[in-house]
Amino acid sequence: MKVLKEPCKVQALSNELRKEGRIIGFVPTMGYLHEGHLSLVRRSKAECDVTFVSIFVNPTQFGPGEDYEKYPRDEERDLSLLKDLGVDYVFIPDVKDVYLEGYSTYVDEVSLSRYLCGASRPGHFRGVCTIVTKLFNIVKPHKAYFGKKDYQQYRIIERMVRDLQMEVEVVPCEIVREPDGLAMSSRNVYLTPEERKDAACLYRSLILARDMVRNGERNSSEIIKKMEEFILRHKSVKRIDYIAIVDRYDLTPVDTIRGKELIALAVFIGRARIIDNIEILEKDLGM
Amino acid sequence: MKVLKEPCKVQALSNELRKEGRIIGFVPTMGYLHEGHLSLVRRSKAECDVTFVSIFVNPTQFGPGEDYEKYPRDEERDLSLLKDLGVDYVFIPDVKDVYLEGYSTYVDEVSLSRYLCGASRPGHFRGVCTIVTKLFNIVKPHKAYFGKKDYQQYRIIERMVRDLQMEVEVVPCEIVREPDGLAMSSRNVYLTPEERKDAACLYRSLILARDMVRNGERNSSEIIKKMEEFILRHKSVKRIDYIAIVDRYDLTPVDTIRGKELIALAVFIGRARIIDNIEILEKDLGM
Repeated sequence: MKVLKEPCKVQALSNELRKEGRIIGFVPTMGYLHEGHLSLVRRSKAECDVTFVSIFVNPTQFGPGEDYEKYPRDEERDLSLLKDLGVDYVFIPDVKDVYLEGYSTYVDEVSLSRYLCGASRPGHFRGVCTIVTKLFNIVKPHKAYFGKKDYQQYRIIERMVRDLQMEVEVVPCEIVREPDGLAMSSRNVYLTPEERKDAACLYRSLILARDMVRNGERNSSEIIKKMEEFILRHKSVKRIDYIAIVDRYDLTPVDTIRGKELIALAVFIGRARIIDNIEILEKDLGM
Repeated sequence: MKVLKEPCKVQALSNELRKEGRIIGFVPTMGYLHEGHLSLVRRSKAECDVTFVSIFVNPTQFGPGEDYEKYPRDEERDLSLLKDLGVDYVFIPDVKDVYLEGYSTYVDEVSLSRYLCGASRPGHFRGVCTIVTKLFNIVKPHKAYFGKKDYQQYRIIERMVRDLQMEVEVVPCEIVREPDGLAMSSRNVYLTPEERKDAACLYRSLILARDMVRNGERNSSEIIKKMEEFILRHKSVKRIDYIAIVDRYDLTPVDTIRGKELIALAVFIGRARIIDNIEILEKDLGM
């Protein structure tokens, strides 16, 4: 496994690999890797000839007062995990080589980004689209792997790639969960043991919601009300940022469930903002 | 010479050419070609193995009330000119294949775009950056050629390419002028014979400005005042949009000339908005 720091070296390498006809898989991460990330890496390893993983805590996707500085980092452990999986190249650039002095160019998705996390984190998805564009231009992958825990991010990247005619296949991957259902996230480390225990309520609220649908409920506000009640019963919950039922493709709010939805939430537990979601499929409606 | 319409076919072709190690040159145009465009094509032919020219009148770079619908078009003549020059591929996409249904992603340069034409044409450079990104992602050129008549556009593209780590060399090319000095432009066709005659005053005002610098004047506002007086003496001039003296690299206004400037103008003559510019070099200051 080779660790690369300079964007131009990665580009040169990728050009060579492409000339040789090799299929390049790419897993962009912010490090502090967990089983969710590793599942993306395994998938890339299985589907591609060469796998690149990037580790870069992207400053432009954090708002003022968010956790950019304290975002957890453990490069040594990350590298050891990636080596064990047989990753070919790890790209760990410096901020200054990714955001060049006086930079002034952004990539902006203006439709899907208005909803869910985009509403509470202005500028977040502009930061995401901008960094992913840069990384795609540097790594030049054939396939790029994104976890569905960040479902809105996946849909926005998919839209951006389509709109800007980037020749990359965006591959969404299933959420990996802890035994009690909590979605894996680098930010789970912010939770105290008690908060960690309470955090399982988020996935349970999503299962509760899906069960309501399976039992015939089609009214989004009824479902959201029940989820809120359930979540707020847990002491560590500081505040619900949002619970929303939206169309899975364009992320617009949905009043009546038809089997094409996403139920998504963001909740402050202790000092962590935790997100999670579940897809509602036609089969959940007995269709 | 082959004419291509579908973006995916151009991508596939470009991938093949790159695998063969061929250097791809690209001249993006809005068609209605003139000697300015042709000089870019000749340069690409001289420097690259394969030359692509695109013809696409990009709707997103026109503001409401601007001349998108009436922008001059003559595909047959364009193709004949390009064939005579030995162009390899001409890419003429449909609008719907470039801006896919429900598109919502833009590329935005937010610093250089605030000045000059960007101040009077809000959204124009967002449209330019977005279409150039798409075209670069489709054609995947090694080198792309831009005329300095659209000097601000050239600097913004150069900045965007650097910021987003696009692996394209942006090559600026000198302005090609009519015998009386008017910069070649597809929009010159909007001018009546009388307006066309008066339009030569723009370049003459730029020469006047440079002569003032060469004779020792360093005060931008003095120079701009003289240019305004000179231009407004011409009957066909409807309105001066701007005359500005700016830093050549970051396009910020400059009060005292130091030999690193651009003098740029946009003037309405008849129903045409004509732009032109001249670079002030250190040698013009006797340095």
